[in-house]
Amino acid sequence: MTYPVLEQINSPADLRTLEPRALTQVADQLRAFILQSVAKTGGHLSSNLGTVELTVALHYVFNTPDDRIVWDVGHQSYPHKILTGRREAMAQLRHFGGISGFPKRSESAYDAFGTAHSSTSISAVLGMAVASRNLGKSGRQHIAVIGDGAMTAGMAFEALNNAGVTPGVNVLVILNDNDMSISPPVGALNHYFARLMSGRFYAAAKNMGRAVLQHMPPVLELARRVEGHAKGLVSPATLFEELGFNYVGPIDGHDLDALLPTLQNLRQLGGLQFLHVVTKKGQGYKLAEADPVLYHGPGKFDPSVGIQKSKAPARQTFTQVFGRWLCDMARQDDRLVGITPAMREGSGMVEFHREFPERYFDVGIAEQHAVTFAGGVACEGLKPVVAIYSTFLQRGYDQLIHDVALQDLDVTFALDRAGLVGADGATHAGNYDIAFLRCIPNMVIATPSDENETRLLLSTCYHYNGPASVRYPRGAGCGAEVSSALDTVEIGKGRLLRQGRRIAILGFGTLVPAALQAAESLDASVADMRFVKPLDHALVDELVASHDALVTLEEGAIMGGAGSAVLEYLSAKGVQVPVLQLGLPDEFIDHGDQALLLKMQGLDADGIVHAIRQRFPEFDFVQDKLVSR
Amino acid sequence: MTYPVLEQINSPADLRTLEPRALTQVADQLRAFILQSVAKTGGHLSSNLGTVELTVALHYVFNTPDDRIVWDVGHQSYPHKILTGRREAMAQLRHFGGISGFPKRSESAYDAFGTAHSSTSISAVLGMAVASRNLGKSGRQHIAVIGDGAMTAGMAFEALNNAGVTPGVNVLVILNDNDMSISPPVGALNHYFARLMSGRFYAAAKNMGRAVLQHMPPVLELARRVEGHAKGLVSPATLFEELGFNYVGPIDGHDLDALLPTLQNLRQLGGLQFLHVVTKKGQGYKLAEADPVLYHGPGKFDPSVGIQKSKAPARQTFTQVFGRWLCDMARQDDRLVGITPAMREGSGMVEFHREFPERYFDVGIAEQHAVTFAGGVACEGLKPVVAIYSTFLQRGYDQLIHDVALQDLDVTFALDRAGLVGADGATHAGNYDIAFLRCIPNMVIATPSDENETRLLLSTCYHYNGPASVRYPRGAGCGAEVSSALDTVEIGKGRLLRQGRRIAILGFGTLVPAALQAAESLDASVADMRFVKPLDHALVDELVASHDALVTLEEGAIMGGAGSAVLEYLSAKGVQVPVLQLGLPDEFIDHGDQALLLKMQGLDADGIVHAIRQRFPEFDFVQDKLVSR
Repeated sequence: MTYPVLEQINSPADLRTLEPRALTQVADQLRAFILQSVAKTGGHLSSNLGTVELTVALHYVFNTPDDRIVWDVGHQSYPHKILTGRREAMAQLRHFGGISGFPKRSESAYDAFGTAHSSTSISAVLGMAVASRNLGKSGRQHIAVIGDGAMTAGMAFEALNNAGVTPGVNVLVILNDNDMSISPPVGALNHYFARLMSGRFYAAAKNMGRAVLQHMPPVLELARRVEGHAKGLVSPATLFEELGFNYVGPIDGHDLDALLPTLQNLRQLGGLQFLHVVTKKGQGYKLAEADPVLYHGPGKFDPSVGIQKSKAPARQTFTQVFGRWLCDMARQDDRLVGITPAMREGSGMVEFHREFPERYFDVGIAEQHAVTFAGGVACEGLKPVVAIYSTFLQRGYDQLIHDVALQDLDVTFALDRAGLVGADGATHAGNYDIAFLRCIPNMVIATPSDENETRLLLSTCYHYNGPASVRYPRGAGCGAEVSSALDTVEIGKGRLLRQGRRIAILGFGTLVPAALQAAESLDASVADMRFVKPLDHALVDELVASHDALVTLEEGAIMGGAGSAVLEYLSAKGVQVPVLQLGLPDEFIDHGDQALLLKMQGLDADGIVHAIRQRFPEFDFVQDKLVSR
Repeated sequence: MTYPVLEQINSPADLRTLEPRALTQVADQLRAFILQSVAKTGGHLSSNLGTVELTVALHYVFNTPDDRIVWDVGHQSYPHKILTGRREAMAQLRHFGGISGFPKRSESAYDAFGTAHSSTSISAVLGMAVASRNLGKSGRQHIAVIGDGAMTAGMAFEALNNAGVTPGVNVLVILNDNDMSISPPVGALNHYFARLMSGRFYAAAKNMGRAVLQHMPPVLELARRVEGHAKGLVSPATLFEELGFNYVGPIDGHDLDALLPTLQNLRQLGGLQFLHVVTKKGQGYKLAEADPVLYHGPGKFDPSVGIQKSKAPARQTFTQVFGRWLCDMARQDDRLVGITPAMREGSGMVEFHREFPERYFDVGIAEQHAVTFAGGVACEGLKPVVAIYSTFLQRGYDQLIHDVALQDLDVTFALDRAGLVGADGATHAGNYDIAFLRCIPNMVIATPSDENETRLLLSTCYHYNGPASVRYPRGAGCGAEVSSALDTVEIGKGRLLRQGRRIAILGFGTLVPAALQAAESLDASVADMRFVKPLDHALVDELVASHDALVTLEEGAIMGGAGSAVLEYLSAKGVQVPVLQLGLPDEFIDHGDQALLLKMQGLDADGIVHAIRQRFPEFDFVQDKLVSR
């Protein structure tokens, strides 16, 4: 494939030298480039094919980077990256040392705000807009591009509500309505969007976007709105109008002839503008159009044949272990209710949804609500399981404290993507949950060491009558065989896996298999502690009594983590014993292959051996053995 | 005063034996009782005078406690408490061992959900409603009473959005519109509410509430809505209708003749109902009606004369120290911007708002938005200061991590109410911020030890070019004289305040004065560490080298707290020294006098001495001295 026009564009300034009619070619080549590029690197596809024309039009009409564009979530920003000098860098997208899959301030002046978690864009551009206002930069535009799914999150509403009473700011919110977040969109707001798009109104507005807006001066446009509002004629757009925005649209987000004049007009108007753009995920690639979920975030594939079902069954992921456990437990216990904040696929709940539709609740991208909603469910004697990524539980932290833990309600949190997450990088890191949960009274924190332990501790925490969390990482584990039973263990009790001498490794979570490998060459003892909280004091006592030093091991921040729980206990008891804390350092860790990143942090078997030898050089370890993985 | 009718009501069942016309008497006596009671105990007044009739009507019409009522925020629940068996307990309201100022599940079966933080009620009742649906309790009603201020928080919107697509649930949202949260209400939504209440529409709807709703069967009511919607005639209510609710109102929330039939009808209708009730804060007590902010949460006062300006100037609170610093720094630095999530008064920003209206941003009850908005402001080179209670920062935790710390943006967080908060109790405890902030890379955490240090460390963190927090407690400090300078100190450096021997107390925050007292009788050394992060390693080294044991001291959770930072450092360095961690235990601590609670936790001077002697009995401490306070 060649991209003769695209290859001439190394910045939006180059783009802006072209005639408008040349932009269709740019869009076509951009779309082809994205397909070929993502098929080689893996990454997000459907969303980026859907924003090609919008991106071309935005950079053509607005004076970026002086005008600010914030891409909500940001996984639709590949066309933006390609047009802003990162075409060649796409070959290393999401790979270690390469560019991020999300906008990132340190990567480009065109990335006005780093995004990845949903629904932050309107808040960010409003902050920029008031700063520009106060700095006297009245001509600057501040643009948030946000999907219909992201609009369901409360913070988007908070930002709209605040914007509507903020005078003198230029804020353009572009609703990129493609009727698909990662899970199918839910919530009354999506029904509302659908009504806005339906039938006659859509056609009329589309024409209005071209004809009326192009030629009407702002004062007449204002008059039109006031009059229309008084008559109740513009009621379909009332929701955003009531919040103080001028609503325009819906327009076809793949039609440059609609996009360019509309954006030019909105640029002239300034103030609070809300543009409703309708796009299609996967646009221009039939396979992705037909199944945008499959092509949401594919690995490598051949674009000419599409994604093929892999023949060799991959190892079971922890997400799958959870999904199966959830169905099995639900079959046994009618009280189980499953809750997800818009991550049905990611959290492994497709099967549960199919089998138990009445007990499945996708509450939308709404982590705050998800947690308190679970609290309400628990009040009535049902047993909610909230499946949530560790990084997204940060959004429901206050609700976990104030609504669940304080009332000691029986809610089980299944924390997926705990620890390093690979290609998504620092924004999605699940490194902090042990620290931020451990300080909360009443919480139980379980850290299963493999797939079977995950099932076991899910059952255990589920039956515990109070708030409990089970954390497990992204991807597959060591391949432990998973029992079909729904057994439980005693809360707060660990187990000794290997009896060695001098050194005892206290493992919290899925680094335990690496610890076992490391222990071979050190002849160290290894305990699977199973619980960070309550901590197994008796087991710690026993290990202290029979060893010269302890090593704590976790895939999480050392600061405040499980190792610190051990230190606190030893300190309170007045026990003096050397402790080495292994875990994640106090820094944000960029994207890259999970295993590679763990190795770089010294959290593979070799790294553990190395760290222990370095810290305790005086110990007479047994002869080196090859530590194989 | 006597309350002959009220005294006959020990539960809502008693209330329901009365004739409707007797309810006015109940309301009158309830209002008088509240005024007399709160004037004796202190507590919330204006909001409770505003909900008297609504509470009487709700318990009269609905079958509580089987029907669930959740009071959003909950400081308007005194009438509810009085009618549900806690009339006499009001004498100990918010006092140690007495009843809570908020609904509390452990206190009464009528308190369906504990509240205190804003905007949780709709999520909670929706959770209860789906549980009731799944349990086959189709007749049960689930009622959220929520103020107009609380409606601006994103999680209320998330819950409405989710409710709108949830079939088969009975949820009644009562918007208690009194046009006043603690700060004056802000946001486009409040303008919208004002329009709903204005002019003709209000009058018509009021009549409709009485006449139409009483007699129209549900099917006709539905037809009316469908038709009205098609004609665009009901557009003022579109916002909630679009989200799937049947909007009714506004009606006068002090008029039992309007409330009773409307609630009876809504009870019959079931499904998703939204009732807009207009009340007046302070209703029935002229002084509170005239100044509802002054009477929002008064201390004790004489109702016959009202709140008197205190003659002797009280000691300066930390909030006041912050407020003065903010104005002084703003005068010196044009880049300073002040941001509050609806806590202008509580955070001490009234003067700043008056003097710098363009640089003051009250974003509404919207902590998530507040933090990301600050991030956007910082991107443009201005210097935002987010004033926020420690407990409310829990709501913006993900935004602090993902939008501010990860991008290393220059945002200063002024954390008020850190540590125990007194009468508000466990729901408002600021006990966790050290633990939940310490694990986040890039964060600076300062813990000033007195008023002057608060000013010094605010200036220091403000000038630090990255995310930084300064935590200080509720109320007044030890009375340290506050400099008028805007001096700074070195980030991450503490100071030795007292040179003693054997024991070194490492103080983080405002318990340092107590540590100095305690040190007199122990001849201990005392350091004011100033920063939890970065920790002053050199000072720790120095103290370890010259002492036999360390004591860490903080008004915050021991788990993961500042003391653990010291343990982690010592452990990493391989230093063996006994460390005693003093701070708050792993439990939720109920309301009560702050000084009393600190004493009970052993965190006054006597308690510190006692804890140290108990832990280190082998040390030959100097002769007891009287430890005075």
